[in-house]
Amino acid sequence: MSDGHVTLTVDGAVARLVLDRPERGHAWLRSMWSDATAAVEGLAGSEDVLALILDSTGDRVFSGGADLDELRAIRSDRDELVALIEAAEGFMAALEAAPQVTIAAMTGSALGAGLLLAAACDVRVASESAKLGVPAATLGIVISRPDIARLVRAAGPALAAELLLTARVLTGREAHERGLVAAAVAPERVRDTAAEIAGRVTALSPRSVREMKRHLLAVSPRWEDLHTHMAASLDGLGSDELEERLAARRPST
Amino acid sequence: MSDGHVTLTVDGAVARLVLDRPERGHAWLRSMWSDATAAVEGLAGSEDVLALILDSTGDRVFSGGADLDELRAIRSDRDELVALIEAAEGFMAALEAAPQVTIAAMTGSALGAGLLLAAACDVRVASESAKLGVPAATLGIVISRPDIARLVRAAGPALAAELLLTARVLTGREAHERGLVAAAVAPERVRDTAAEIAGRVTALSPRSVREMKRHLLAVSPRWEDLHTHMAASLDGLGSDELEERLAARRPST
Amino acid sequence: MSDGHVTLTVDGAVARLVLDRPERGHAWLRSMWSDATAAVEGLAGSEDVLALILDSTGDRVFSGGADLDELRAIRSDRDELVALIEAAEGFMAALEAAPQVTIAAMTGSALGAGLLLAAACDVRVASESAKLGVPAATLGIVISRPDIARLVRAAGPALAAELLLTARVLTGREAHERGLVAAAVAPERVRDTAAEIAGRVTALSPRSVREMKRHLLAVSPRWEDLHTHMAASLDGLGSDELEERLAARRPST
Repeated sequence: MSDGHVTLTVDGAVARLVLDRPERGHAWLRSMWSDATAAVEGLAGSEDVLALILDSTGDRVFSGGADLDELRAIRSDRDELVALIEAAEGFMAALEAAPQVTIAAMTGSALGAGLLLAAACDVRVASESAKLGVPAATLGIVISRPDIARLVRAAGPALAAELLLTARVLTGREAHERGLVAAAVAPERVRDTAAEIAGRVTALSPRSVREMKRHLLAVSPRWEDLHTHMAASLDGLGSDELEERLAARRPST
Repeated sequence: MSDGHVTLTVDGAVARLVLDRPERGHAWLRSMWSDATAAVEGLAGSEDVLALILDSTGDRVFSGGADLDELRAIRSDRDELVALIEAAEGFMAALEAAPQVTIAAMTGSALGAGLLLAAACDVRVASESAKLGVPAATLGIVISRPDIARLVRAAGPALAAELLLTARVLTGREAHERGLVAAAVAPERVRDTAAEIAGRVTALSPRSVREMKRHLLAVSPRWEDLHTHMAASLDGLGSDELEERLAARRPST
Repeated sequence: MSDGHVTLTVDGAVARLVLDRPERGHAWLRSMWSDATAAVEGLAGSEDVLALILDSTGDRVFSGGADLDELRAIRSDRDELVALIEAAEGFMAALEAAPQVTIAAMTGSALGAGLLLAAACDVRVASESAKLGVPAATLGIVISRPDIARLVRAAGPALAAELLLTARVLTGREAHERGLVAAAVAPERVRDTAAEIAGRVTALSPRSVREMKRHLLAVSPRWEDLHTHMAASLDGLGSDELEERLAARRPST
């Protein structure tokens, strides 16, 4: 955990990966994707760790998207953009492949990468009032095909289309009613609810969990080939449109 | 729009395709499928049109199915039946492939082709009291595999099976509770709600919408080969069973 | 029906398959899987039987899982375990392929094989208070990939993951809210509700039902190759873990 923004703790059979960059809305630097991937992959051989909770400090934001300053600095360098997308995808794929049961504890909002992360988990818990969505199209961003497959897996094709193609933002309560989160609870109950689910998981057979998770992935929407369809995402991140749409967002001074 | 039953208007970034054959419950003539397909395909190059609303005049029926008089006239001619199915499928496929975000505004009932049309759209809005279903099996009709894939995409496999295999008809409110429509509102609010969603879409990046819609289709249930599995549909439309079941429906005089 | 634990009756266009082993919670002996498969396959040519209701005697349990005494007796014999899994899968596959509309009438609890059976049906009705789940991982059991595909088809990938990976048990009412059952009603209304649906089905075209069911399966999650991924299931059933977990369940005496 080179910069301290991502920490992993293990307590018995439950691991907890915590984002800690609250001053930037838990936005992801490229180094954070790598650190988080290494942390999750480091658990792969730990048969006695059965549950992995994704969490973040504070309760305003569960997770932000890519750090925009970093993105802006590299956006004219295609190789750097490829590396950034690969880093983010690496973490999503690590979550998906983890032998643990992965649980997103969305105490606060999850917009963009935040909700895609949660969709890569097996179970999602959200605050009733948390704002959840993937409004990438408001910025000219094109979510990758593997990430869209995960959102379809978590939300179903119809709700995934509504989130992506109309930039719809749901409350946690609405997301529960529409099947995207397993439980929507009061903000102060999110971490306890995630811990209760993790506690139930610790009583389960590691073999059963690992093998049935593999079966589930094999029969659910999934896309593993990041690179073939990456061009549109790179065009989006590298375009002037992103810069213009970001500028249009800021209040004029 | 050769016969005036299908009209397309474009207002800024929002197009509106309106069915207008209220005296026949907005039933589809073969020429209407062709006209509607041409209209939607004509928008394919219009990068500045971002949303396409499907609507119809009045508020009793959103869309009927195939015009039964026309169907009866051709039902012993297999080539004509193939052409009719191809025409209908052409419109469904055009909606599915449209670079615009497609929104069905179901002010009134959508039974049979009407709901399949809506399922080919990205977003569905319905009147709370609208009757929605695909009771094709009451007439001996076999919905095509591509259309069934679209219904599975919109409703999920379990609800699609219930609609098709038990001829269940839902109210718009029930369809919302079960995930088939994005919003169920009072009848007089359907068009406004569709327009609000379209308005949100107009603020989005055309590239993002177009590319993410492609990704969504690639990872969702879909069937593109109409002809291989068309035989059962042709048998259904060409059989005496259809005629007998239609006759059994009519009140005796 | 060699041992009388599975009986099939046909009344007009509606068949009813009834489990009757209440003293063992309707747990399945290998002979019962074979009997039930033969009964369902025997209906395949009966064009005039349009609906098949799955039911059981009493109202406490809809269906149990494998009979644990029988399982224990064969668990060190790999060939016997293969034969047992094949027998269970044979029945699930027969239900899936039946030309009839299959309706599970879950008057009581359906845990493990009971819910997987229901997932292999086209329509599920449950008592509001019935306990539904697949807590296989509490015993070290690994559900087969074909059965997991059926659960994904009935429940969607997200809820299927929650059921399998956290051993979550839902009430019938919750299962309805989350899309897994078509109707949740008072216990004494379950059989009538299933009969009403079957009654609606009897008015439908056999061709439409048979062909559209085929189309539905072709575009929905499904896995037909039982054997390639059977090893983990065999390991689970043959392991000491199962015996230990069963022992841990029993109150000490």
